[in-house]
Amino acid sequence: MKLNCDLGESFGAWSMPVESAIMAEIDQANIACGFHAGDPLVMKQALFLAKTHGVAVGAHPAYPDLQGFGRRSMAIASDELNAMLQYQVSALSGMAALYGVNVTYVKPHGALYNDMMKNAEVRRTVMQSIAEINASSTGAPLTLMVQATAQNAALKEEAKGWELPLYFEAFSDRRYTDEGLLQSRGIEGAVLDEDDALMQAEQLIESGTVTTASGKTLTVEADSLCVHGDTQGAVSIAQRIRSFL
Amino acid sequence: MKLNCDLGESFGAWSMPVESAIMAEIDQANIACGFHAGDPLVMKQALFLAKTHGVAVGAHPAYPDLQGFGRRSMAIASDELNAMLQYQVSALSGMAALYGVNVTYVKPHGALYNDMMKNAEVRRTVMQSIAEINASSTGAPLTLMVQATAQNAALKEEAKGWELPLYFEAFSDRRYTDEGLLQSRGIEGAVLDEDDALMQAEQLIESGTVTTASGKTLTVEADSLCVHGDTQGAVSIAQRIRSFL
Amino acid sequence: MKLNCDLGESFGAWSMPVESAIMAEIDQANIACGFHAGDPLVMKQALFLAKTHGVAVGAHPAYPDLQGFGRRSMAIASDELNAMLQYQVSALSGMAALYGVNVTYVKPHGALYNDMMKNAEVRRTVMQSIAEINASSTGAPLTLMVQATAQNAALKEEAKGWELPLYFEAFSDRRYTDEGLLQSRGIEGAVLDEDDALMQAEQLIESGTVTTASGKTLTVEADSLCVHGDTQGAVSIAQRIRSFL
Amino acid sequence: MKLNCDLGESFGAWSMPVESAIMAEIDQANIACGFHAGDPLVMKQALFLAKTHGVAVGAHPAYPDLQGFGRRSMAIASDELNAMLQYQVSALSGMAALYGVNVTYVKPHGALYNDMMKNAEVRRTVMQSIAEINASSTGAPLTLMVQATAQNAALKEEAKGWELPLYFEAFSDRRYTDEGLLQSRGIEGAVLDEDDALMQAEQLIESGTVTTASGKTLTVEADSLCVHGDTQGAVSIAQRIRSFL
Repeated sequence: MKLNCDLGESFGAWSMPVESAIMAEIDQANIACGFHAGDPLVMKQALFLAKTHGVAVGAHPAYPDLQGFGRRSMAIASDELNAMLQYQVSALSGMAALYGVNVTYVKPHGALYNDMMKNAEVRRTVMQSIAEINASSTGAPLTLMVQATAQNAALKEEAKGWELPLYFEAFSDRRYTDEGLLQSRGIEGAVLDEDDALMQAEQLIESGTVTTASGKTLTVEADSLCVHGDTQGAVSIAQRIRSFL
Repeated sequence: MKLNCDLGESFGAWSMPVESAIMAEIDQANIACGFHAGDPLVMKQALFLAKTHGVAVGAHPAYPDLQGFGRRSMAIASDELNAMLQYQVSALSGMAALYGVNVTYVKPHGALYNDMMKNAEVRRTVMQSIAEINASSTGAPLTLMVQATAQNAALKEEAKGWELPLYFEAFSDRRYTDEGLLQSRGIEGAVLDEDDALMQAEQLIESGTVTTASGKTLTVEADSLCVHGDTQGAVSIAQRIRSFL
Repeated sequence: MKLNCDLGESFGAWSMPVESAIMAEIDQANIACGFHAGDPLVMKQALFLAKTHGVAVGAHPAYPDLQGFGRRSMAIASDELNAMLQYQVSALSGMAALYGVNVTYVKPHGALYNDMMKNAEVRRTVMQSIAEINASSTGAPLTLMVQATAQNAALKEEAKGWELPLYFEAFSDRRYTDEGLLQSRGIEGAVLDEDDALMQAEQLIESGTVTTASGKTLTVEADSLCVHGDTQGAVSIAQRIRSFL
Repeated sequence: MKLNCDLGESFGAWSMPVESAIMAEIDQANIACGFHAGDPLVMKQALFLAKTHGVAVGAHPAYPDLQGFGRRSMAIASDELNAMLQYQVSALSGMAALYGVNVTYVKPHGALYNDMMKNAEVRRTVMQSIAEINASSTGAPLTLMVQATAQNAALKEEAKGWELPLYFEAFSDRRYTDEGLLQSRGIEGAVLDEDDALMQAEQLIESGTVTTASGKTLTVEADSLCVHGDTQGAVSIAQRIRSFL
């Protein structure tokens, strides 16, 4: 089980906290590509830190929406979304090469991630855009990171058509619904405190399950656990999960 | 002598004219990278056209200023400008690879181009940012396109320190000052009409000189002639220079 | 029956055609406010032209999406959308005052207009945001321009709760569906040619009806006809409708 | 002597600290208008807080540069800059009216402020843009806030030509050069610690002078003291100056 975290999400004069502290605790850094956060200098700093800590780098592309931090769903035509994704992944990949780092996977951000999980057309566009990059590249193919749900097998089948490897991720610090989705941040208790997050992480690691808000046990087979950098105590949570692993 | 043109300068619903008509007449397409023009889909269309017409592709990075079309000088710290340039070149290069196209050179746009020509610190930042890309790449090094002036030798010397090849370009459709600079667009007659542009192109090709606004003859040794896509009659000028060549 | 047109939709170096030519033919100019088009200088030029031609001025606010020209639906929280609308209307109103012009109405643009017509929550947010402006102003209240449909009465009822006057507009140059909506621009024939647009305008003016794509006759009671500035022959269509009126 | 502070400088998901804590300590809030910071919702929150605390509101317009937080000088044509300023002031004024608040002054932000102080053409554009607003308004004229220097009299003379009242501000928390300018933030000691800031404030209030980095005493006649919200201990500094006053 890997640990991943969204990073490089500062922008100009505005900083997101814990960027560097958490880099020492994780395996995979999902680095913003400039559309929801991450100006070019911030991206280089995140790449530098990932290189220094030997952390794998993934592109974290988003809808073009700085003001909304990529959290607002946008109805974007498939060919435009395809081009936006390829632009962002290309920008990060080229800058990563400056540090001798390979971008190895792609994890869509925010509303794009949610739309990908629930909207087949968006998911097809995401898959196709990465598959086209893979087809034109001589290196190892990029892996797409998606949310682990009860439908892992169906997603694998879809990805196979694009010869696209998948990572499945679960969330240690967010409460699950019975449908295997994350509770909306607006709901009381949707973001777990440190002890509950650790407990959920341990259950995911040991038994491949989570206990939902209603107390149900769900199977969630994951390759990677997401720790949100902006959660209270994120560094501490990451350290404790790391110790447990 | 090559012909080059700035392309891919539409943005969303707004189109710049003659994009595709002129592609058939030129050797080198300077493609906008999203900071002054060129959204990701527009960039892909320009790359596709360049591929189709066998035109060499250069990155055309700019200051981050859509509203000003990259024509307003901005005081940007060197490390930020460096990162912005690498971001833009990386984005275009990665998208070009989708079409099996290599980006072979970089021509800064607008105010960044002017600042590069007259400000040694900006020029150093531009050179270093491309040199860093070259150092991390296994392919042929990117060439920097600069303006041909009486100081070609001095620029070559500067570029040598960065192991950076240079293209020198001259302008067929813009009036030169005695200092070898372009007259400001605001001045009457600064943009040449079709016949004058052809005459200036012929003089540049045959004798490596231009006649300035005051009637002086200047030496301008160039590898490439720039035809502005937004000049009245640009396609026709390009065709006539092409015939002459 | 009035004629209205979306104007001030250039941005920086990119121009939308027929801006000034059509100003002479219309009664109401819907002026972009900077979020989908219309930089501050473009807005001043549009206001100046409206003043010169004695054309009434409406604010034409949009989702914050230059690249998508405001045509992409965005899931924006109500309080944010409320603030965005008030920001845009305020910006235009203040600049209009420089020319002694009053902004008298608001017509949402593009995807925001469509969302307002079909989504009650978006419509409530739009209505409330304008009502709050009206409540804080000593002048005549702003009128909201909405699409004329078979539900005019229901919309009037909703607007009454906000003490908000309404204009109903119909479209001369777009084909209607049987549901009283506009056919998507992607469909063949969705944008009417000049003769058909004139015919549809005459029918709307004389009988308050349109003939839909399937040949059905719909009642569409409108106060204003929209002529799209980017439709082929827009100026000519406007002139011919003007003559008919 | 008044206390002023730049506020409303959050943007979307990114927060600037101490926004509300400092509102209780100051007399004048310079509220960002969306070009360097301050999305519409942030602006409304800042206006609401200013209203609640009875703090005077000034518009804090900037160059259009979110990524650079308005700290990068931009070469913008006068007519464009004029329109940008009027757009920003209008947006804030209209939104302020929603809370029954009047915008009473304008303080340019960052690089625009510096350019205004040292570049006569930029200063003329700033003055003219506000004067035009004043001329079209029936309310009290907007006052322009400028930096207090040895040239106060000359600035007053320039402003008189535009019938523009001026506020002169001094800085409690920044070291002055012998020329009466602020030391660049990059220089060690340029930003004063809490005790030094209080001492400088007391000297400005009691004797209308500052002691420069080299130990010289300069006359600086000011109407208002700026406390930077992002300085370490800003709230505490403001409280101590307030007590002293």
